[in-house]
Amino acid sequence: MKVKNMTQTQIKIIESAISLFAKHGFEGVRVDALAKEAGINKATLYYYYKGKQEIFEAALKYKFGKLVTTLHQTIDTESDPTSQLKLYIVTMLQREKTLVELMSREILDGGVNIPKDVFALIIEIANVLITIINKGISLKQFREVDPFMILDVLIGAANHYIISSSIREKFKQNRAKDHPPCPQYDIQTYAKMLHQMILSILKDK
Amino acid sequence: MKVKNMTQTQIKIIESAISLFAKHGFEGVRVDALAKEAGINKATLYYYYKGKQEIFEAALKYKFGKLVTTLHQTIDTESDPTSQLKLYIVTMLQREKTLVELMSREILDGGVNIPKDVFALIIEIANVLITIINKGISLKQFREVDPFMILDVLIGAANHYIISSSIREKFKQNRAKDHPPCPQYDIQTYAKMLHQMILSILKDK
Repeated sequence: MKVKNMTQTQIKIIESAISLFAKHGFEGVRVDALAKEAGINKATLYYYYKGKQEIFEAALKYKFGKLVTTLHQTIDTESDPTSQLKLYIVTMLQREKTLVELMSREILDGGVNIPKDVFALIIEIANVLITIINKGISLKQFREVDPFMILDVLIGAANHYIISSSIREKFKQNRAKDHPPCPQYDIQTYAKMLHQMILSILKDK
Repeated sequence: MKVKNMTQTQIKIIESAISLFAKHGFEGVRVDALAKEAGINKATLYYYYKGKQEIFEAALKYKFGKLVTTLHQTIDTESDPTSQLKLYIVTMLQREKTLVELMSREILDGGVNIPKDVFALIIEIANVLITIINKGISLKQFREVDPFMILDVLIGAANHYIISSSIREKFKQNRAKDHPPCPQYDIQTYAKMLHQMILSILKDK
């Protein structure tokens, strides 16, 4: 990850690539579209990257690298695993929508386009949570639970929250008149509920 | 929903359409491919359906109609809202992978291809859960909670569980050696955890 050494043009290529891959998936994007979206010509694009696969890899490394840094910085502001879990949930709910869309499409494609070193970053993101859980276990605050099960619920609920904002709006407009009014919920409200749910499993006797 | 009146050919068209839409999304599928996948010629396909949009609509109505029936039949075997919630979760985790993949792609596309009467079926699926929660509230077993928040966690966690099976395998193979071994979890184990999590919110004092 040599983020420091990236030029403004490279960052522009990457940001516009993320939004295209988010919309159309890896297979649905061509180099022409990547250059056009970034507002550069193909020669400039090829000066920096060999092609689509390299841009995809650079974009994911850049974004996931930033997320790993943010997660560590945020979680290090607390030492108690219960509080750290809350910060992890909030940070995951605050991810950019385009990145979550891109990854959701990749999950649907079985992760075939994810290169090995990007996968290592995803593992690192998971490991931040697993470390929090293991710390809670060793401090006898949490019981022994399969951390991957917790991860699946957390990622599933967080990704769904982020990608389904427009469907959720339609839903609310179409619900039956005899149902009680539903309060709107924001990231903090949703995070609080998810935190309480996960703690109910981790602190169960 | 005239499922009874559907011919074997129509069911064949619909089943193969679901698997194509699941893989490529609505935009990524052409009528030629639909006919080929169903093993029929285009003339036969056009005898039954006007085109892609009509097949998409028929397929979703057929599948969601079946899911609504299954949900009602399953839940009606219990009367207690806590038990009914468990049955709802298990049924949602047992949905066909291709249907969940198709819907996940639709959510990513903002639901633009979902026709109004399919949307009504999706609302009905949501309403089964909302009815269970409202029953629990009126029996003073559950406290007042925004049912859409519960729905988001449940659908998010269930969809993720279903669509991420191959990514999950990669994950387990790539995890660090110093982590404790993780038990495999099946639908029943995952359902039990989700049930407990959701009850911790619904029964919170």
